[in-house]
Amino acid sequence: MSNDPLIVFTPSGKRGRFPAGTPILTAARQLGVDLDSVCGGRGICSKCQVQPSFGDFPKHGVTATQEAVSAWNAVEERYKSKRGMIDGRRLGCQATLEGDIVIDVPPESQVHKQVVRKRAEVRDITLNPSTRLYYVEVEEPDMHDPSGDLERLQTALKTQWQLEDVHADLHILQTLQGSLRKGAWKVTCAVHLGDEENPPRIMAIWPGFYEGTVYGVAIDLGSTTIAAHLCDLSTGAVVASSGVMNPQIRFGEDLMSRVSYAMMNQNGDAEMTLAVREGMNALMTQIATEAEIDKQLIVDCVFVCNPVMHHLLLGIDPFELGQAPFALATSNALRIRARDLDLSIHPSARVYMLPCIAGHVGADAAAVALSEEPDKSDDLVLVVDVGTNAEILLGNRDKVLACSSPTGPAFEGAQITSGQRAAPGAIERVEIDPVTKEPRFRVIGCDIWSDEDGFEQATAQTGITGICGSGIIEVIAEMRLAGIVDDSGLIGSAEQTGTPRCELDGRTHSYLLYDGSATGGPRITVTNPDIRAIQMAKAALYSGARLLMDKFNVDVVDRVVLAGAFGAHISSKHAMVLGMIPDVPLDRVTSAGNAAGTGARIALINRDKRAEIEETVRNIHKIETAIEPRFQEHFVNASALPNSVDPFPLLRKVVTLPDVSFNTGGGDASAGGRRRRRRNA
Amino acid sequence: MSNDPLIVFTPSGKRGRFPAGTPILTAARQLGVDLDSVCGGRGICSKCQVQPSFGDFPKHGVTATQEAVSAWNAVEERYKSKRGMIDGRRLGCQATLEGDIVIDVPPESQVHKQVVRKRAEVRDITLNPSTRLYYVEVEEPDMHDPSGDLERLQTALKTQWQLEDVHADLHILQTLQGSLRKGAWKVTCAVHLGDEENPPRIMAIWPGFYEGTVYGVAIDLGSTTIAAHLCDLSTGAVVASSGVMNPQIRFGEDLMSRVSYAMMNQNGDAEMTLAVREGMNALMTQIATEAEIDKQLIVDCVFVCNPVMHHLLLGIDPFELGQAPFALATSNALRIRARDLDLSIHPSARVYMLPCIAGHVGADAAAVALSEEPDKSDDLVLVVDVGTNAEILLGNRDKVLACSSPTGPAFEGAQITSGQRAAPGAIERVEIDPVTKEPRFRVIGCDIWSDEDGFEQATAQTGITGICGSGIIEVIAEMRLAGIVDDSGLIGSAEQTGTPRCELDGRTHSYLLYDGSATGGPRITVTNPDIRAIQMAKAALYSGARLLMDKFNVDVVDRVVLAGAFGAHISSKHAMVLGMIPDVPLDRVTSAGNAAGTGARIALINRDKRAEIEETVRNIHKIETAIEPRFQEHFVNASALPNSVDPFPLLRKVVTLPDVSFNTGGGDASAGGRRRRRRNA
Repeated sequence: MSNDPLIVFTPSGKRGRFPAGTPILTAARQLGVDLDSVCGGRGICSKCQVQPSFGDFPKHGVTATQEAVSAWNAVEERYKSKRGMIDGRRLGCQATLEGDIVIDVPPESQVHKQVVRKRAEVRDITLNPSTRLYYVEVEEPDMHDPSGDLERLQTALKTQWQLEDVHADLHILQTLQGSLRKGAWKVTCAVHLGDEENPPRIMAIWPGFYEGTVYGVAIDLGSTTIAAHLCDLSTGAVVASSGVMNPQIRFGEDLMSRVSYAMMNQNGDAEMTLAVREGMNALMTQIATEAEIDKQLIVDCVFVCNPVMHHLLLGIDPFELGQAPFALATSNALRIRARDLDLSIHPSARVYMLPCIAGHVGADAAAVALSEEPDKSDDLVLVVDVGTNAEILLGNRDKVLACSSPTGPAFEGAQITSGQRAAPGAIERVEIDPVTKEPRFRVIGCDIWSDEDGFEQATAQTGITGICGSGIIEVIAEMRLAGIVDDSGLIGSAEQTGTPRCELDGRTHSYLLYDGSATGGPRITVTNPDIRAIQMAKAALYSGARLLMDKFNVDVVDRVVLAGAFGAHISSKHAMVLGMIPDVPLDRVTSAGNAAGTGARIALINRDKRAEIEETVRNIHKIETAIEPRFQEHFVNASALPNSVDPFPLLRKVVTLPDVSFNTGGGDASAGGRRRRRRNA
Repeated sequence: MSNDPLIVFTPSGKRGRFPAGTPILTAARQLGVDLDSVCGGRGICSKCQVQPSFGDFPKHGVTATQEAVSAWNAVEERYKSKRGMIDGRRLGCQATLEGDIVIDVPPESQVHKQVVRKRAEVRDITLNPSTRLYYVEVEEPDMHDPSGDLERLQTALKTQWQLEDVHADLHILQTLQGSLRKGAWKVTCAVHLGDEENPPRIMAIWPGFYEGTVYGVAIDLGSTTIAAHLCDLSTGAVVASSGVMNPQIRFGEDLMSRVSYAMMNQNGDAEMTLAVREGMNALMTQIATEAEIDKQLIVDCVFVCNPVMHHLLLGIDPFELGQAPFALATSNALRIRARDLDLSIHPSARVYMLPCIAGHVGADAAAVALSEEPDKSDDLVLVVDVGTNAEILLGNRDKVLACSSPTGPAFEGAQITSGQRAAPGAIERVEIDPVTKEPRFRVIGCDIWSDEDGFEQATAQTGITGICGSGIIEVIAEMRLAGIVDDSGLIGSAEQTGTPRCELDGRTHSYLLYDGSATGGPRITVTNPDIRAIQMAKAALYSGARLLMDKFNVDVVDRVVLAGAFGAHISSKHAMVLGMIPDVPLDRVTSAGNAAGTGARIALINRDKRAEIEETVRNIHKIETAIEPRFQEHFVNASALPNSVDPFPLLRKVVTLPDVSFNTGGGDASAGGRRRRRRNA
């Protein structure tokens, strides 16, 4: 056994013996310890900071004295005085091994550090970005052995960083010579590490050591809004988040309206492509301004979106998506250049679009799968991403099924009499007293309930303007719980319900939720057509889930995950009262927030996840609701509002809903069948 | 041994036994016989035409009866009646094997057919283009197993053509769905087969069977002119050739002037980049118009050029090429997109630029090496590409050396008193009677000598306007042979030479070659400064060649190849009289024409040649004349005009030049030293 000093790295536990005088960074590299470095051990970048531990470590078989590492040196002193460094820390490239020692690698010094996600229930993301920074020293040109500056830079990247076959786009060639000379043949390169289609590529070059970082954007391109997270690719941190309305809204609120617009207007698809790309660029500018960074530092983008937005962003006519067999132009993941989408960010910036699952189940659903990982779940999980279309995943480790259900925009407050988008002033939470039938509610932007002191003052600014998607779910569920609505979905009259809030409204009745007319505000009512719209939407959602359960040959699922911005605000109890989702213990219903956006961010900061989700998507079994007879059957059955639900199974307290029935001669409120809403802008 | 019929293919000689009824195309494929097919054996493309031979073939051990192939069928009849087919030919995909037979594959049915080059002394080019056409039948979409149209097309290319991992650019995705449906799920794809940096890629797609072809352009981007050959990539044939002046001329005639322009004017390099790219687009339009094709069918380009043009085309400031150590931004071959150079041809068209050999020896020299193959020569060959700079290669199978020599533009008629570019009206051939000292000459555009009947009428249109590069070589050599010029390069007076054509001109004399002043034409003279300019140029050329010979440790070369447009017109005898090239038997001096352009064409139609020339260039040993003391030495020694040459060694008749010497008090005509000409536009 060698007498060389023993070094033990924590937290990895990797250990080995090295000759005295070996830099700690060198030992870490040889042992495969995850210790970062941008400057390659030249004492410039400070990424390799480590924490030596002294004393007795019986667990590691080490007794470490202060003499086990070399003395604090001038390079470290200069760095600490210029930039600051936590006491006890050393630069791994400067401190050398002199005796047995335990060295802790703090999280921020790990290359593949974990990036903490906000929701605690999901695993953290391992940092492994597409693009990293490398500091290199390049040989000067020699007339006796002529070679290009790029070729010498490539050699430096190979010998100093083991990066093979690194290419450069034209704009790099155009600035390369100036940067090399300005930096006295020392430069920092941002290198995109390549992927299935592209070799590694120098994205940017700075003279000398570059203190900054490069960025990526994860974009959730929705029909209504476009949301983006700007991430620092060297830390994985979200440095800014921003959103804009999808400018395509003017061509139609929902996807089918936009497909119709493309079908009925020459160049309609091109107009919409232009609009969404302009929106993207506005968003890029906005998020870069917010983070106070140069847009040119954005080198990587990940997009998730539904198939129609996918096609329109790419400049593909969505015509085929509007009719059976709903054929996508391409379903695979795409690796393209941002320039091909007219995105004015870094000239060589890459775009990764997650794969689509099927013609109705897009890259957004793939991103939800990446975030929620039903394919790695031990129990059977139903993941529902509620939007204009609901994407539904059902699965576990054995298999995953997916389908899309045409819920329409009712869940987003559209096509609802007093409906509006989720914005300050919109009613989002509702309770109705089962005895008095009187409502109380909360509006977005205000924490006070409407029957509490200070509500009027608190809402004076925004007013009370309408009902948003989660509000409409709650008010209808509460109306059902309070016996104002029967199981067929009819609202009773004032006599039947015992409250003057139920008003005759045409041939049916409406429930007056809020009357602001005295002060010039709106009269906010829930009408019977509103209830029917929600019935249709929830029936579509429920039928999709039920269909997947049939295909899985199960009657119950173990847990439900509600994804989407709407899913984040929806009340599980009320959703179950309405029969939106299959019965499941209430504590087994969780919200995943914007899971599609999270999936995009995962694919952005961990490039290995891209191949992984592509493989997952290939294995997802796709169900097309349009050709499944059972979908229609479930739909008809699901349009009623349930008579009983079991929202609190742990308390064994079944909620029996009032057994009421109204018939005011109105239309058939439980009308089944699939109704596709089409409007033209 | 099997009783299956024996099939022997000629000219390959490949043979094998197959069950009766096997299509000839199938047998050819299984035996690896080079038999073309675009439609994959569906009787559409007719590329697989073969010629069965009947009778006794003792050499092949075959006796073939008429029954050895299946009867002429309806598919063949339809094709023959629609498109015509040579009698006796069969479609390889239709005719089946029924007995022992000999099948000839005519050259036009071979995939890797030989493309005949015009000059007989060089091997033909094997056709192996970057982009080929493939006809495929694609599965229709199926809702039960949803997949993208692209993915099904990729599957078809894989199963029907064994093309793996084929990608598609956005513009393909944008038109794919329409093409597939219009062609009833049968389409023809142009597929770029990929290279070191790029996976195979669908370049274009046509509904049904596409009868047309795709094209490539080989471009020789010179300082003065840009020449292009448009090639049909399915036959390798040149379908149009065209040229334009390099629009950069306005920034400076020679390269160093342009480097100076870039140095002295802000955005000077960008202006020149814009100019040359505009020139390229004009040329593309011109050549496509000439060939009556759509520019969008041009899918591949190969560029050869000198290092300064290389950098300016790519948008790289040539600053570093204007000063030691003459560092190129990149010396490797480049594989980029035509769009990156703003070329408005096919949206995904590729550009291949040959590698540069060194800062003064560009991709044009690499192309000359590809065309002339000094690295495959058994004897020692000196290849000289004469232009504004002379690129010189010396080598054989063992090694190849290269250098560049700053000849300046004198050889192109620039900086010569009566000099002009090679254009109709320019004097290109000259003879001077050694006794009378009277000249006769020929001008470009006229086959009649000036002392022959009908010359005046024949040149009435163009006039006699000046002397081009080859003319100036001839007239000075003839003046030397006639004793009008001494070995130091001085022109004698009328008394010394005995002809009134020698006129006093400042402090030296001029020789009057042609006097058109009586009819309003020019007086065309050769002045002593003209002779000095040529002396400098030829000294630079000779010294470069000599330097390489020193490095090779030889005093003689076996043969000389003169490349370049100028090399095609130069008279070897006169070049040797002037001492431009080392002495070598006159019949060992050949002209390679535009070898750089030929090299570009080889790389265009045979993609394997790209890796080959890259390897060759890596192995070429570069000599930088600027740092070689012996270059200066050779230069000083070489500026004189030789006293004797041996142009006819086979006749053993040494030409002894007149031993004359004039001294009229003019400047030092044999002034050595290197003179860099710089002018600012």
